[in-house]
Amino acid sequence: MKFKVEEVMSAGSDPLPSWNDCKAKEAIIDFGVRTSTAGSGDYVPVNERIAVFDNDGTLWCEMPVPVQAFFVNDRLKVLASLHPEWQRTEPFKSMLAGDIKTAMATGVKGLAELGMATHAGMTTDEFVAIARDWLSKARHPKLNRPYTEAIYQPMLEVLAFLRARGFTTFIVSGGGVEFMRVFAEEVYGVPPHQVIGSSIKTHFEMRNGRPILFREPVLDFFDDKANKPVNINKYIGRRPIACFGNSDGDREMLIWTTVGRADGRPSLGVIVHHTDAEREFAYDRQHVLSGQLDKALNEAETNGWILADMKNDWNVVFPGAVRSAQVSR
Amino acid sequence: MKFKVEEVMSAGSDPLPSWNDCKAKEAIIDFGVRTSTAGSGDYVPVNERIAVFDNDGTLWCEMPVPVQAFFVNDRLKVLASLHPEWQRTEPFKSMLAGDIKTAMATGVKGLAELGMATHAGMTTDEFVAIARDWLSKARHPKLNRPYTEAIYQPMLEVLAFLRARGFTTFIVSGGGVEFMRVFAEEVYGVPPHQVIGSSIKTHFEMRNGRPILFREPVLDFFDDKANKPVNINKYIGRRPIACFGNSDGDREMLIWTTVGRADGRPSLGVIVHHTDAEREFAYDRQHVLSGQLDKALNEAETNGWILADMKNDWNVVFPGAVRSAQVSR
Repeated sequence: MKFKVEEVMSAGSDPLPSWNDCKAKEAIIDFGVRTSTAGSGDYVPVNERIAVFDNDGTLWCEMPVPVQAFFVNDRLKVLASLHPEWQRTEPFKSMLAGDIKTAMATGVKGLAELGMATHAGMTTDEFVAIARDWLSKARHPKLNRPYTEAIYQPMLEVLAFLRARGFTTFIVSGGGVEFMRVFAEEVYGVPPHQVIGSSIKTHFEMRNGRPILFREPVLDFFDDKANKPVNINKYIGRRPIACFGNSDGDREMLIWTTVGRADGRPSLGVIVHHTDAEREFAYDRQHVLSGQLDKALNEAETNGWILADMKNDWNVVFPGAVRSAQVSR
Repeated sequence: MKFKVEEVMSAGSDPLPSWNDCKAKEAIIDFGVRTSTAGSGDYVPVNERIAVFDNDGTLWCEMPVPVQAFFVNDRLKVLASLHPEWQRTEPFKSMLAGDIKTAMATGVKGLAELGMATHAGMTTDEFVAIARDWLSKARHPKLNRPYTEAIYQPMLEVLAFLRARGFTTFIVSGGGVEFMRVFAEEVYGVPPHQVIGSSIKTHFEMRNGRPILFREPVLDFFDDKANKPVNINKYIGRRPIACFGNSDGDREMLIWTTVGRADGRPSLGVIVHHTDAEREFAYDRQHVLSGQLDKALNEAETNGWILADMKNDWNVVFPGAVRSAQVSR
């Protein structure tokens, strides 16, 4: 049984109005409908309708550097007076000079130092307050809007469409889990327990008779590449049937979702392809600082992964005003 | 505004019929109703209605030893012919001789060895198949029923009642997360992504063109005591407003739920007190192998934690047949 975009749309309003008619739109609607229609050969029980979404570059803009790098940069400036040594030491020196790209080029070790200096050393409640305050004020330097509005309207529609078809939607991102949870529920309709990301260690202690969780400068888990299926198993405990990504960081979770399933479940893999230099940014293979898409692009055809071409497939990129999708639970 | 059990029950059927009229029943119903009734001074938005439940001794029987120890014991017997050295080495020797208590008394190190020998060295899919097969056949040695029916009917009713009031219910247990996920959805109505527990490390690899996750003999996280709030924060990302436990292993998550909340949210802490030697088992302070209740019992009154007295408060302990609660998502 094959469902057609036109049939679904004639039955009601278009669930993906920001998408032009294209292969990706048809594939997403077709998949959502046939997996949730009783009697369809591809019907999947509601509790197995799990969809996972990368965040940076898949749900919101990750250029010129991921949003969290801007947060790190601003946070370092706030803390700089307490750390005179940062003026002489990389990657702090470059970050404080506003040269985020040079700082990020110090690689994983440098990024970890920056992350710990800005994300650890406070309680979980304090970190949430810091991140929330920053997100409420900071603006994307090129798109001239809050970061929480530098999100992709077509992807909000995909989230809402799949949830309307009984899917539970999860974010599975290399970004910090507690940073994303500050905005994911309001902005994407994804509650905290459905946000999976990188984490640092915390410990429990009593302070003045009240319990706190203290954020330690120790990495707990880096949720990227082959670690994404590991975290999907750890947090979700079930193999997704739909996966949306945009880079090689999502390659293994695309494979985990779509390749060689012994359970015979249908699956969908979609890659958001950044082809729109005018409305957003155009990048794939050569890009290194965030979201390089190379291996996964080579393997897309073989694995049946659908490319969503931002320039040609999306008639709108960013929402006029943030339209928060309904919360899924 | 104070809601009364009688008012709720007169409005419909009794949501907790296996509970006798008692302080615990009144407290649970009152809490569920006032937090979910618009206009109540204690109203809590639906996305913050998070309830956490310990498993061993709170949702199912943990005596004479936790169910997973029986699984370990049976699994060792299956594997023993491959490991002649186990006949001479503790804790394997005692376990193989059926002396689970002596084996468990070897402490955390011994338990970890037993856990790794039986829970690692296979793919995640293989482990699920092994655990599912065992659970379908094994029976509790004293209660003469499958382990998945050695569950507490009154607690199934609490799970269903809170979900009917808009709560999302999570299990937060020291037990192995992948072991619990095999039965938690069918038996408790708790889907895999709402089951939190102890975990071992896994890694992703391709095997004959198919992706697998391989279970390594390395502890990832032991979800007990002060680690429970850590895992609640990591997996749920939100402080629960209701917590159900039965031992000192649950003390810190009871504190995290109920003590010194800066957000002013109402909260409920309940301790299942094993007082029924006739229908189940009677134990608290002296018990060591599983579920010792000592510190948390001392602190119950000060912290307002309600004791559910199994002997006096429950008119039924185990379900006649497993009644699976509706799945929450």
